[in-house]
Amino acid sequence: MEPQRRPGGRSARVREAVLDATTAELATHGYQGLTVDAVAQRAGVHKTTVYRRWRGPEGLVADALERAAQQPWPIPDTGTLTGDLRALTELVRAGFADPESGTVATAFIAAGMQHPDAAAALRTFYAARHRDAAAIVERAVVRGEVEPEVDAVEIVQLAVAPLFHRLFITHEPVTTDQARRAADVAAALARMPIAT
Amino acid sequence: MEPQRRPGGRSARVREAVLDATTAELATHGYQGLTVDAVAQRAGVHKTTVYRRWRGPEGLVADALERAAQQPWPIPDTGTLTGDLRALTELVRAGFADPESGTVATAFIAAGMQHPDAAAALRTFYAARHRDAAAIVERAVVRGEVEPEVDAVEIVQLAVAPLFHRLFITHEPVTTDQARRAADVAAALARMPIAT
Repeated sequence: MEPQRRPGGRSARVREAVLDATTAELATHGYQGLTVDAVAQRAGVHKTTVYRRWRGPEGLVADALERAAQQPWPIPDTGTLTGDLRALTELVRAGFADPESGTVATAFIAAGMQHPDAAAALRTFYAARHRDAAAIVERAVVRGEVEPEVDAVEIVQLAVAPLFHRLFITHEPVTTDQARRAADVAAALARMPIAT
Repeated sequence: MEPQRRPGGRSARVREAVLDATTAELATHGYQGLTVDAVAQRAGVHKTTVYRRWRGPEGLVADALERAAQQPWPIPDTGTLTGDLRALTELVRAGFADPESGTVATAFIAAGMQHPDAAAALRTFYAARHRDAAAIVERAVVRGEVEPEVDAVEIVQLAVAPLFHRLFITHEPVTTDQARRAADVAAALARMPIAT
């Protein structure tokens, strides 16, 4: 009698090891330095396993993003809309400023500009993140801080867009003051819905 | 007696030819496909000339951006702040949607993610563009539409940031309605300065 196996047990362990290795490689070398060989070696699996399942760097990045999208992240809950949005934009600012997580996140974004698979994965990833963060605005609606008609996801995107614009388009630094200002602008907009 | 030469005449012509070739190559192959060989061949110059003066693809992109920053662009002047900002965001949306200019502009942004030289050139390029576009807000101040204390460059950046965020971070399409909405949000903000 064969020993009982959890379905997908080994497959799931391989995936975890490979995606952990992908993240570690991205943190060290960025997207341009990501190779299947290095990932396979770090994960302790044969490189044909990686090629067969992930095809190449863009497939690794897409799957790493898919896993990241399912990991919970700490949505701020300070008791006010402004406080929450300030905490959110500060979380984004500090995340990209961090040598490790910032390098990985930047590598994801760089990959999105170079491969449609990575772009699609980023789209799904950020849709999940913005849906999660929309809780900030929904709680403000419950507290009566803003009208129920407000588009919660739009407010979240308004708060973070200026940070991404500076970091990846105009290549200007983002200070804590600028992160706070972006949050305040979004909060002001939430309180004053624009007629369309 | 040697014929009189304009100082830098030939040098300037070579630069024009090489940067035109760079732009044409970017429009066809994007940044990842940009090679010194292809640029030199298209420009009709020797590749050592290109290597010596521009070093590589990132140098070509940086110089092409420097040239682009000096070319005038049509700042909208419709008579109202909302009209001008809507025309501005539509200009950005349509520019990136255009198969030729959009591919070139996207290649510039991708280059900025991969090389510090290109990033520095993008920073200078967008600083010039935003300063130019700030005229939209400054005219609104003169007309009495907004208070003189408003940060004109910030309003311009607020108007365009959501478009870049969708195009290059979340990889969502940008519709004309979304471009208009981003303009309306920025206009509303300009009319209601946020206390800091």
